[in-house]
This record gives sequence, C-alpha cells and structure tokens, in this order.
Amino acid sequence: MATGSINVSVENIFPLIKKFLYSDHEIFLRELISNATDATLKLKHITGIGETKVEYGNPIIEVKIDKEGKKLHIIDQGIGMTENEIKKYINEVAFSGAEEFLEKYKDSAKDSGIIGHFGLGFYSAFMVADKVEIITKSYQDEPAVHWTCDGSPNYTLEETDKKERGTEIILHINDESTEFLEENRIKELLIKYNKFMPIPIKFGTREETKTTGEGDEAKEEKITVDNIINNPNPAWTKQPADLTNEDYKNFYRELYPMQFEEPLFNIHLNVDYPFNLTGILYFPKLTNDINLQKDKIQLYQNQVFVTDNVEGIVPEFLTMLRGVIDSPDIPLNVSRSYLQADQNVKKISSYITRKVADKLQSLFNNNREDFEKKWNDIKIVIEYGMLSEDKFFEKAEKFALYPTIDGKYYTIEELKEKIKDNQTDKDDKLVILYASDKDAQHSYIDEAKERGYEVVLLDSPIVSHLIQKLETTNEKVSFARVDADSLDNLIKKDEDKISKLSEEEKEKLKSTLDKVIPAEKYTVQLEALDSTTSPFVITQPEFMRRMKEMSATGGGMFGMSNLPEMYNLVINTNHELISNILNSKTEKKQERLIKQSLDLARLSQGLLKGEELTSFVKRSFDMIK
Amino acid sequence: MATGSINVSVENIFPLIKKFLYSDHEIFLRELISNATDATLKLKHITGIGETKVEYGNPIIEVKIDKEGKKLHIIDQGIGMTENEIKKYINEVAFSGAEEFLEKYKDSAKDSGIIGHFGLGFYSAFMVADKVEIITKSYQDEPAVHWTCDGSPNYTLEETDKKERGTEIILHINDESTEFLEENRIKELLIKYNKFMPIPIKFGTREETKTTGEGDEAKEEKITVDNIINNPNPAWTKQPADLTNEDYKNFYRELYPMQFEEPLFNIHLNVDYPFNLTGILYFPKLTNDINLQKDKIQLYQNQVFVTDNVEGIVPEFLTMLRGVIDSPDIPLNVSRSYLQADQNVKKISSYITRKVADKLQSLFNNNREDFEKKWNDIKIVIEYGMLSEDKFFEKAEKFALYPTIDGKYYTIEELKEKIKDNQTDKDDKLVILYASDKDAQHSYIDEAKERGYEVVLLDSPIVSHLIQKLETTNEKVSFARVDADSLDNLIKKDEDKISKLSEEEKEKLKSTLDKVIPAEKYTVQLEALDSTTSPFVITQPEFMRRMKEMSATGGGMFGMSNLPEMYNLVINTNHELISNILNSKTEKKQERLIKQSLDLARLSQGLLKGEELTSFVKRSFDMIK
Repeated sequence: MATGSINVSVENIFPLIKKFLYSDHEIFLRELISNATDATLKLKHITGIGETKVEYGNPIIEVKIDKEGKKLHIIDQGIGMTENEIKKYINEVAFSGAEEFLEKYKDSAKDSGIIGHFGLGFYSAFMVADKVEIITKSYQDEPAVHWTCDGSPNYTLEETDKKERGTEIILHINDESTEFLEENRIKELLIKYNKFMPIPIKFGTREETKTTGEGDEAKEEKITVDNIINNPNPAWTKQPADLTNEDYKNFYRELYPMQFEEPLFNIHLNVDYPFNLTGILYFPKLTNDINLQKDKIQLYQNQVFVTDNVEGIVPEFLTMLRGVIDSPDIPLNVSRSYLQADQNVKKISSYITRKVADKLQSLFNNNREDFEKKWNDIKIVIEYGMLSEDKFFEKAEKFALYPTIDGKYYTIEELKEKIKDNQTDKDDKLVILYASDKDAQHSYIDEAKERGYEVVLLDSPIVSHLIQKLETTNEKVSFARVDADSLDNLIKKDEDKISKLSEEEKEKLKSTLDKVIPAEKYTVQLEALDSTTSPFVITQPEFMRRMKEMSATGGGMFGMSNLPEMYNLVINTNHELISNILNSKTEKKQERLIKQSLDLARLSQGLLKGEELTSFVKRSFDMIK
Repeated sequence: MATGSINVSVENIFPLIKKFLYSDHEIFLRELISNATDATLKLKHITGIGETKVEYGNPIIEVKIDKEGKKLHIIDQGIGMTENEIKKYINEVAFSGAEEFLEKYKDSAKDSGIIGHFGLGFYSAFMVADKVEIITKSYQDEPAVHWTCDGSPNYTLEETDKKERGTEIILHINDESTEFLEENRIKELLIKYNKFMPIPIKFGTREETKTTGEGDEAKEEKITVDNIINNPNPAWTKQPADLTNEDYKNFYRELYPMQFEEPLFNIHLNVDYPFNLTGILYFPKLTNDINLQKDKIQLYQNQVFVTDNVEGIVPEFLTMLRGVIDSPDIPLNVSRSYLQADQNVKKISSYITRKVADKLQSLFNNNREDFEKKWNDIKIVIEYGMLSEDKFFEKAEKFALYPTIDGKYYTIEELKEKIKDNQTDKDDKLVILYASDKDAQHSYIDEAKERGYEVVLLDSPIVSHLIQKLETTNEKVSFARVDADSLDNLIKKDEDKISKLSEEEKEKLKSTLDKVIPAEKYTVQLEALDSTTSPFVITQPEFMRRMKEMSATGGGMFGMSNLPEMYNLVINTNHELISNILNSKTEKKQERLIKQSLDLARLSQGLLKGEELTSFVKRSFDMIK
C-alpha cells in the first residue's frame, strides 16, 4: 500500500482563481482595499496595545490611476511587510495571514475589526492585471522590498528604497480590463463597496475655498484638499445613545441619495452574543405593491459592502424595509437552503424579528397618536409578518391596528370591547364588519353606520388570509364584509321582523320578480327590513368571496379563483317601492320598475358595466329630457 | 534579486474548495455524476474510433444509498483509471483530466459531448463526506486500484480485486450532511440536475408486471427492473425533422410536470457556428402580469442542468417563455454585466431573438387565423419585445396585430389602409382610435362605431409606451383613445357645424352651467354635435393621460404620475336636453337637470363613486317609487 499527500500544481491555480473564485472581476478593488484596511487596522491594534514605539498617526488609503502607464495604485500606510512576510503571505497561496495574526493576538484582537474573510483576495488582482507589483515597508526596522509577478507564477523579489511605512500595490491593467483605468468606473466601485470602510480612502483631490484672516483682512484662497471618498464612521457603528433623530435621517440620505421621501422611523440593531450584528433598519412609506419594494437592505461585513440581497437572512416580510446590516457571522456565497439551515442565521433572523416587534410596541406605547398616523404606511409589513411568522403574530396582536371607516384606530381587543354590546349576535358570536374599499362599498357602509355598527377598513391585498387567521385565534369572532348579506342576516338578533306583505303577496311578488330577474345570476331573497333600507340590494356571500380572494393571492383552496362570482338579490319587502311594483297597473310598467331597480342595485355593487351601463345612461337621459 | 515560483500548500486548498468553490453543497452529486458520464462517454469515443477491442455495451451509472453504513455509492461502467491515472488525475489537484484528453483526441472528440468544465468536481465530494474511496478498473489490462482519502490531504493507494471495468466512488457521508442518505433527497437532486443526462442513471429498482405467453397460456409475472431516473435522449438533442408536434408537447410535460396548460407553440433552436446552442423554447399562455411568469427557462450544458436563471443570456422580453437552452459556450458563475459584455452571449441572445421573430412570422404566414386566435396569449411578449429591442421591432411590425373591438385583427399596414378614407383628418393625419377597456369605455366606443370608425383594443399594461413608439415610426399617424375628446375634435374634418343655439343662448348656457359645474374639476366645452350624440360627455385629453400612464409603468417624464387627472365636459348644444335646461322654469329645476346630467356623464366615464354614487342611487330610487 502506497501513501502520500495530494499535491497541487500551481500552474493550475491561477486560472482557477480567475475562473471560479471571483466571478465578478470588479471585486478585485474591494479585495485590495480590504487588505489595505486590514494592514492599517493591524497597525492600530499593535500600537494600541503598546507593542511598538511606532506612532499610528492618521493613516489613509490612496487609490491612484495612471492612465498613460495603464497602472492602478493602491497605497496604504499600514503595517507593511518584511521580506520574510512577503515570502510567507504572498508566495504561499491560500496561507491566510489574517488567520495567523488572529491566532497570535487572539484576545486583544477580538474587537479590533480585523477582516479574516478575504485571505485570498490579493490574487484577485490577476483577474484584471497582467503584472502586479508590491512595494512595501514594514513597521519593523527592516528594508523595504519590491515584489513583481506576471501571474506565470514566477516572481522576483528585491530590496528597494521606499521610506514610508506601508504597502503600495501596482496593477498593470490588462487589455480586457481598461475600464478600470477610468476615473468614473473606479469612483463607482469605491462608492459601491467601500463607502463605509473604517479607514479614509483618498481618490484624487479637489479645490476648496478657504477664508483666512478676519474682517477687512479676510482673504479667500483656493486650496487643494484630499478627496476622501468614504465615511469611515457610519451611523450604525455608533451607539444609539450618541445619535439624534437627525443623525439617523442623514444616514438614510447617505444610504439612498436618490430617495426623496424620509423614513418613518428606524430600528438600531446591536448585539454581541451569541452572534455579532450591528445595523440600522428603516421603515419607509410602503405601498401595497410588495414586490417593487424589496431588496433595499444592504449587507456589510465589518463595514465592507457584500450584497443587497438579504433573502434568507432577514425574514421575508422584513425585506421591504431599508437600511444596513453588518455581521461577520453570516456565511457568504452560500445557497439559500444552506442559509436557512445555518444556526447563526436563524438566530439573527429571529433577533431582527424580535427587535422590529419591540420597536413597534414601544412606538405604540409611547406615542399612540403618531403610531396611528403611520399605520397605513407600515401595515403591509406588519400584516404580512403576522401571517408568515407566528412569533411576530403573538407580539403584533398587541399593537396591530384596525382602523374604522371614520378614522378611529383600535387594537383587536379594543375593537372587541367597543362593539361587543351592539354586534354580538343571538348565538353569542361577535361579528366584525369590514369593508375593503370605502368607495366601492359606500352604500353598504352607510347602512351599517346608520345602525350604529362600526365598520373597519381592511384594504391590504392579503387581508382575506389575515382575517382567516384572526378568526381561528380569536374565539367566537367572525369577520363579514358589509356587502356579504343584509345586515339583519349578518348580525342576527332575536327580533321579530314584521313584514308589510302577506304570505300571498310575497308569493305574487316572487313570481313577478322571477320573470324579470335572471335566475342564473341572482338568488332572490325576500326580507322584511326597515322601511328606510334600500328596496333592492345585491350581496355577495362572505365565505365564497373570501376563498376566491385567498386563492387569487396565493393559498386557500386550489382552483377556487376560477369559480364564478355568486350574488344574492335582497328585496326589502317593507320598502314603499315594492308595494308600487306589486300594485303597478301594467305588466310593462312593473317590468320597467324592476329593471331600473335592479340596475340601481347593480350600480351600488359596481356591477353595471359596458353596454348595460350605456343603455342605463341613455334611458336615464331620455327620462329627464 | 531573488526569483522563485509561487507555492501552494495543500492544507489550505481543501477548506478553500469547501468554502468558495461550491457554495451549494448539493452540487457534489451533479459533479460526481458528470464525472461518471464523462468516463462513460470517453469509453464510447475510444471504442467508436476503434482504438481498443473493449466493447462499449450498454453502460449505466448507478447511485446507491447505504443508510446503515452512512455511505453513498456512485458506480459507472466507463473508462476507469489505472494506478498512474489516479496519481495524475486525483492526487494532483486542479489538473484537469478532461483537458488533456481533449487535447489528445482533439478532432475526433469534438462532437462526442465530453464535458470539460467540471475538472475540479471530484473534490466537491469532501463537502459532504469525511472520507472518500475510489475503486476503479481501467479498460486497459491493468489491475484495479483502491484509493482512500480522509481529506487531510493524505491518501492511501493499493491494488484491489474489482473485476468489472469502471469506477465506484464511495462517500462516507459526514454528520452534517445526513440529508444525502435520504432516498427522497437524492431522488430530488437526480431529477433536478441529471434528468436529461446522456447515460442512463439507475437509482433503486421497482416492480413491473410482465405478461408472458399468449391467449390462454398468458401468465402475469412480477419482475424487478432497474429504476432509470433520467431520459438520456431529451427532445432538444434530436433533429426537428424527427419530432412530431406530440413529441414537443410530451417534452413540455416532462419539463413542467405540474403545468396543466399546453404550450401554444415551440421554437427549436439548433446552431453549431459561431457558437454551439441547442434547445426548445415554448410560448405558454401569458397573462398581463409579467413578473410572475419569468424564470422558467432552464439552462443546460451538455445535458447537465445549470440554472433556471437565464437573465442576461436570453433577452429580457423572452424570459417569459419556457423551455430549455443547452450551450457549452455560455460562461458560468459570472456576473450579469460580464455576461452582457461577452461576445458569444451577445450572439446567442440575438440569435434567439431572430429565431423567435422568424417563427412568429412563419406562424403568421402559414395560418393567420390560428395566429389571430393566439394573439391575446402572446401579445405581451411581442409588444414588450417591440419596445425593448429595435431589431425585433422591425421584424414584428409585419406580424404584430391590432385587434378591433369587433374582433377583427389587422397589422399596422392593413389597419392604416382600412381606415385611411374615413379616419384621415383635414390636416392629412391618420387618427387611430383605440380603447383600453371595452367595458369602461363602452359608451365612447359605441359612438365611434356609429360613425363607422374602427376602434382597436389595446389593453396591455405597456401600451402607452408602444403607441408612443408607433407614432414616431409611422409618419402622419396618431393614436387617440376614444374618450380623449369629442369625436369631432379627435378627427377634425372640413365640415360646417350648425349650432341650434345662438351666440347669446350659448353665453347664457355657459353661465348657467358655471354655477353648477365645479370649475376645478371640469373644463366646460360647448360643441355643436349631432343631436343624437350624448348631451353631456366627460373626456380626458390624450397627451396628459398617456404621459401619466407612461410615467406610472416606468419611463416617460419624471413625476408625471403625480399630476391630477384632467377632464373636459363636452356639452352637445344640439341635444334636446340642453334646450330643456335653457328653458327650465325654475332655477332649482335647472340645477337638478344639470346635476343629474353631470352624474350620468360621470357614470359613463366611471367617475361616480362612493358617497356621490350612493346619493345618486337613493335619488333615483326616490324618483321611480
């Protein structure tokens, strides 16, 4: 039996890195600036714990384009490398310097924000460069060195005379990558990936006007200043106590410069254990179109932008929010199913859910009036969350609001308390009346209000699912849309109804109506209602309509959405018009009255359309001319 | 100056592969089965060109779960490996065997379908296994060998007594990956990635009933047969001439087993040069909701499933189609911007666009009636394509249809020809009247039809953009929605209009109307129209409405969608009702007539809603009772 060790021949590693490791060539800049940042933070750490006499100072990172020479320079003032370190960290691929450093300074380095993820990043330079040079001087008292490699993988290494501490990387940009010699392209990348990195990044200079002297002596002077492209101390890295409302709003504008609308409120995330997560989430004004508003949350790792796809990390209903999440504990480049199984990610997701629920609860508690004002803009998130996350549902039951048509806002418990006397039916069931459209259901709402009933306005697209859930979690409560039946039937009470019509008259009326009303469209239902209630009303039974709606918005029973619409025609036998119909002199007049009444009922339910509406309008013009 | 060669230490390559190379662990099975397929196709090639006396036979690949032993076996009957080949291809990472093979048999191998992309695939086994074994016997007369590695990266290698040609891979599944010992999970993966791979894949067995003998002698017998999970010869690998309509439909059902609706038609893609692409695209029935229907096209490379995200490869308007694209020339794992810049991908994209346009043109030419029937189900793709791809627009102008309200279908040229006599205005401009909603605009359509005008029905969500484009490409043609103005104004002719009212009466009418009609909502416009034309009509000017629509569906001028709706109220001074209003005895009666007329006009335009509709209905019930 032979034994041995698997060998890797390097001729094949470079194409591999180019092809697989980083599919997006632009990533090289993020990687090199991450390395420069690491090198600077390492120096900060070492000077901080007093291990060297070197001064940390105010180091920056500089990015320079040399268009003529086809070169791109990335220069830092960090820890630098000795000849031995070059040999160890650069000449040996996949030997992650950050890891060893972390091992050495384990405890003290924990919070210094050193990035351990991008150990291989340096080689990504070869995706865009034919040749790469490193000129570096360590903070230790050793000569500077100059390393050159054309990616072959042969390198040269020699001493050089660089005086300042730090590392300069020079990329000889290849012919396919000349885009990276364009100022605008580099600026775009710096802003995309490095906007919030912790070390100032200089890219070019700009002129500023400076006033010197005072009063008559005052002189305006043009001076050239470094153009710093990033904000090294973004709001989410600070303590909530140190931030004002205005600071949060300013940071929102920093994140979304093209967004004119202000956020409604924000949630500051900050946790150390059992995972590390910071961030700020914002509630924007939301509309009912869920899909358009997703994917605005940016994911960072130690202030390096990673992605704006947080699917699987943030619970789906919260992907409509905006803001930043920064966590080194989220695995990158993994599939969604893997993410969902990851324990850390699960914890992060439920932490975020809990923080959002707590924030909403505190807004509700501290300024109910303001919370009510915001309700319409945030309800879609909350309702969607109540449907999809049981834990959120439990919390949200205490602050989710049910606005009435008249603009009062109740929690579910308040609403139940408010209506229990008037809207409990004879079987002890509490009936919550709702409307989905104030305009379309106006006449029905009107009648309900005349009886002193409260009508809540539930107009989100997922409302049928939500009330289905509320009915199962609230005992002896049922929801009914105001146009689901006559109000007497929706909330049945122990009252004797007195009909003006005799049984015989009812029979006669029924057969008269049957001649004119198409039976395949309407089920006629005679009711002895209040004489002021409409003579003809079209209703649509709650159960079927709700099932159809649930089916149409996903869920519910399969195929329900294809069922035909079902309507009842409620005839108020106590209305004067009905007597008129019964007593009409000619059959023609009777028929005309019924038809016109049916058309008016259809108008109220939004069912009179097209040709029928056109003839109704023509007929009505004829009647008044 | 020192020189040297960059060295890669293997201890760090395994974690690298695990972490970066394949983010999705489940990929290991695709990779191993790809290797098994390669090994089998290589044998086929070698036997095919007569380089060996070995028989190809009917090789299969077998996948076996040993749940108790926590092992997964992948067994092929392919070319196998000698000890030296193991050393070369397995012990040296990143040394792609397929590449060297391709080099050796360059010309003859070209069309044999050997996959060169997955050279590193074998190592993905270590993502899910603690220990991996290879037991392999080459087609050459050499002893079988047994390789074992626990990923450390130490291996052992020894002779073994395997008799059959081929390779068996044994994965000792690790504790985090026990899902891959579940039959259902493996079956799911085999169907996802290997459904159409070219070598039969056996996964378990199943019982079948076999009838032997005939007549009275017939006996039913249960036999056990191999359960072959894949279809090695999917439709797209065949020649169009060899496929019937039914074959295409069957393949659609194979691709989308959960899809009950049949496709409308298909497009067979088949090109060798300058890139290699095969595939079948299907036009499904489409609705107006564009977003829900995307991402159904599956991308394969040599019959291995890669992804169902073809963004950047297929032009966006065609991502609503379904089907399969198979091309080894599409770069994988690259960013969208990279894809868009790739020359091959550009060619592939424009080839697909051209083929789709050609197919549509031939359907139009060969069976116009059938094409018209399908129009409503396919128009969204065609209209979207006309807007987004100029080349497609040029082709589509010849077959894009404009259906009239009465169900006739015209191309733009036919339509222009048809209406030019009647609908050319006095300035020689051809006016195409359209409606966006047959029901909502019924009364307006009705009036246009009474004049013998054709009204086309354009009800796609992007139609405002499309007609804007059509107006710029068709000279002296303009589109107007039927309710954009009075018909006399929409198509101005050199006709004298005779008004029944004197100038003085008009003045009086105007001031009477102004008292009742809210000026902030309606601009009153007196017109001497035909006496049978409606007395009150509300119109909405074309330009503003169209700009608002364009802004709402993306594009157009910024902020237009927030402008208020603008309406005109056209009063037909020649209608009898207008004289009645002028001659009303009391001001109260006059006001009542105007209000009722305005309400009727608003009904026709769908503007009477909510409380106003409720009072209109109540008032009307009162009037008839």
